[in-house]
Amino acid sequence: MSALDETHDPGRISWVDGAALGSDFPVQNLPLGIFSDGKGQRRPGVAIGDFILDLAATGDLLDESWRNDLAQPVLNAWLARGTDDHRALRQRLFEMLTNERYRDDLEMSLIGQSEVRMHLPCLIGDYSDFYVGIHHATNVGKQFRPDNPLLPNYKYLPIGYHGRASSVRASGEPVVRPNGQRKPPDADAPEYGPSRRLDYELELGLWIGRGNDLGQPIPIAEADEHIAGFCLLNDWSARDLQAWEYQPLGPFLAKNFLTSVSPWVVTAEALAPFRRPMPARPEGDPEPLPYLAGDGGSAALGIELEVTLSTEKMRDAGLAPHRLSRGSAAAAMYWSAAQIVTHHASNGCNLQPGDLIGTGTLSTDSDDGLGSLIEISRGGKRPMALPGGETRSFLEDGDEITLKAWCERDGAVRIGFGECVGRVVAALGA
Amino acid sequence: MSALDETHDPGRISWVDGAALGSDFPVQNLPLGIFSDGKGQRRPGVAIGDFILDLAATGDLLDESWRNDLAQPVLNAWLARGTDDHRALRQRLFEMLTNERYRDDLEMSLIGQSEVRMHLPCLIGDYSDFYVGIHHATNVGKQFRPDNPLLPNYKYLPIGYHGRASSVRASGEPVVRPNGQRKPPDADAPEYGPSRRLDYELELGLWIGRGNDLGQPIPIAEADEHIAGFCLLNDWSARDLQAWEYQPLGPFLAKNFLTSVSPWVVTAEALAPFRRPMPARPEGDPEPLPYLAGDGGSAALGIELEVTLSTEKMRDAGLAPHRLSRGSAAAAMYWSAAQIVTHHASNGCNLQPGDLIGTGTLSTDSDDGLGSLIEISRGGKRPMALPGGETRSFLEDGDEITLKAWCERDGAVRIGFGECVGRVVAALGA
Repeated sequence: MSALDETHDPGRISWVDGAALGSDFPVQNLPLGIFSDGKGQRRPGVAIGDFILDLAATGDLLDESWRNDLAQPVLNAWLARGTDDHRALRQRLFEMLTNERYRDDLEMSLIGQSEVRMHLPCLIGDYSDFYVGIHHATNVGKQFRPDNPLLPNYKYLPIGYHGRASSVRASGEPVVRPNGQRKPPDADAPEYGPSRRLDYELELGLWIGRGNDLGQPIPIAEADEHIAGFCLLNDWSARDLQAWEYQPLGPFLAKNFLTSVSPWVVTAEALAPFRRPMPARPEGDPEPLPYLAGDGGSAALGIELEVTLSTEKMRDAGLAPHRLSRGSAAAAMYWSAAQIVTHHASNGCNLQPGDLIGTGTLSTDSDDGLGSLIEISRGGKRPMALPGGETRSFLEDGDEITLKAWCERDGAVRIGFGECVGRVVAALGA
Repeated sequence: MSALDETHDPGRISWVDGAALGSDFPVQNLPLGIFSDGKGQRRPGVAIGDFILDLAATGDLLDESWRNDLAQPVLNAWLARGTDDHRALRQRLFEMLTNERYRDDLEMSLIGQSEVRMHLPCLIGDYSDFYVGIHHATNVGKQFRPDNPLLPNYKYLPIGYHGRASSVRASGEPVVRPNGQRKPPDADAPEYGPSRRLDYELELGLWIGRGNDLGQPIPIAEADEHIAGFCLLNDWSARDLQAWEYQPLGPFLAKNFLTSVSPWVVTAEALAPFRRPMPARPEGDPEPLPYLAGDGGSAALGIELEVTLSTEKMRDAGLAPHRLSRGSAAAAMYWSAAQIVTHHASNGCNLQPGDLIGTGTLSTDSDDGLGSLIEISRGGKRPMALPGGETRSFLEDGDEITLKAWCERDGAVRIGFGECVGRVVAALGA
């Protein structure tokens, strides 16, 4: 992991408008993303205040050896370069964006964030999804096994499975309600039609930087060097399709119709001030096996998470979005990002630059911190009341879910993730 | 699907050596693959007899509009073009390879198959794996639930899940025994180490041709147009890792350390003479729901499958490989390839050109047709005797598994798939 340096100093402020302390994108953040405007192809940019710095337009201000990788329509090649180059770019951008003498050269390369469209930052080779939110696993497990919610393997390994790479989209993609097979408990046979139990899942995503060769595990002490950055991830889920299809091979069509991510790669370097030791495991829990134990696996992320819902009626009535949950990733994750990566590669599975890994739903142990509707509505049995008089057990057409995340603590600047938004539209043929 | 035409006529023979009837690669087959030799980059070729026709070297003999897509290091762009172009290329190659007047132009573009290395035919965006071998599902289910081996959903939908794209490799890749967590039934806690229950799985793979847009299902009547071809697939499986990790989200590290495929894309056109109606469902089984019913889903594949094992001792003693199974795909598959594709996209999931879909293990209902060692050895309880005096429950280091497939019936030429081979090597650190 990165040591703290001047790029984390809360006393430094960029000359760019809107980049002061309190912004999601101060000069201590500098997340990378892929954008397009009317004037060019997809290309990399850095968020600063209310703007994007167009990296392809910075000319010879950046190291010549970097320029090709920073002019691609995806960030895979850049992320593959590893932590030394990532740290060096951060240092250089920090210098350019805090020092007034670069202002004249760079102002023309700043584009308002409201004027561009953001895209997926990477061509995702593989997307895998984990289940490290122990309170989520417990809450969902209780609905099936009230006395024994967590399965015996849960505290020994980070449970994960493979998801669909082709249907991952950047924030803003419409959520078309999926059709599928669902079987109500009292029906004799399943039927095919629009999901009636459409849900969201609040997750963090990890972007893989440097990969590993097939057959070569990633030691826990090196795992952090393979994580280039983080994003928000909404693992949209059709609970009725999931309940019918998931045995014995796991969720499939219930999940793979869409996964949304926030478009900025918030770098591991930017998050360094917010790393903290993993909380001690509760008494009686097993210690991690040696391959998952040690310093590399000791860092939890102090990332604050929030989910809001606005319905069509609420928007028509001018009502503000309703907060569904608020909580901390560190309070939710039983396994660290490093442990996820090391376990994933522990059998020799090769991770590649630009791979996306979801943490699984991050719920805290509080009723205010539940990361999905199936938890909030207790499987649909306790519909939630909304401002304006509506109720919700699951998502209805027109509902919009917004995930937000940020880091903030004494002596450190706020680091924002931007948003991950999706609005539900009617099923095809419905 | 393709109607039969002169390219299926058993009376026609190529002028290329070794391409006579009885070869795996007569002129009625013409599978596509990606190869390299000492002299150039990876590029597409067609198998004919004992040779490969180097498509990039055929100059202006092929339609100009095809040439760019047929000079790429992967076949994705060509497969994306859809059935009309695929059929036209087949017609053209058939003409060139049966007509002596092309001999002088083409002989220099023929390379011995023994002189090249074969690669994956496509850049695989997503790999998903199904479970449509009903006898396999029954055999494995019996080991867990003797009285109720098939779960209630099995006869209503083709069960599937996502696998790992990055670790799919062409035939010949060494099978490094994976390390992982496994918990013997009598142990208190799991331990990390080399798998002791390494297995193979005999499957067919489907290569997706034309894709579908996110949100747009593929009607069953159009499903065949999205399947460009077929291969053999070995879904190497670590049963001890699988048993410990797979609940509740399905297999993960037990499978994603390696998946091997035969390198040739045996085209849907070549297999047309071997299509037959799906066998009637046993009395009492439900009819497929309307979205999975109809002509498009009615074609089973008359593909013969064979698996052999040779151990290091057997090879040292000069013993021939031992046949583990022999059976027909049509006798194994409860769901057709078209039904797999239509179900996969039924929620709007987008399939892309070059995607790989496995059928799941194809076992017949006979003891001679079991497609995995966990079935043959009854979960390890009935070790199998081998020539030379060894026994096997699961794979040992040095064991080599070879999958073969071919189509053959009265009045049609034999269509071979080539082989899918893998030899087990010791685990890292073992």
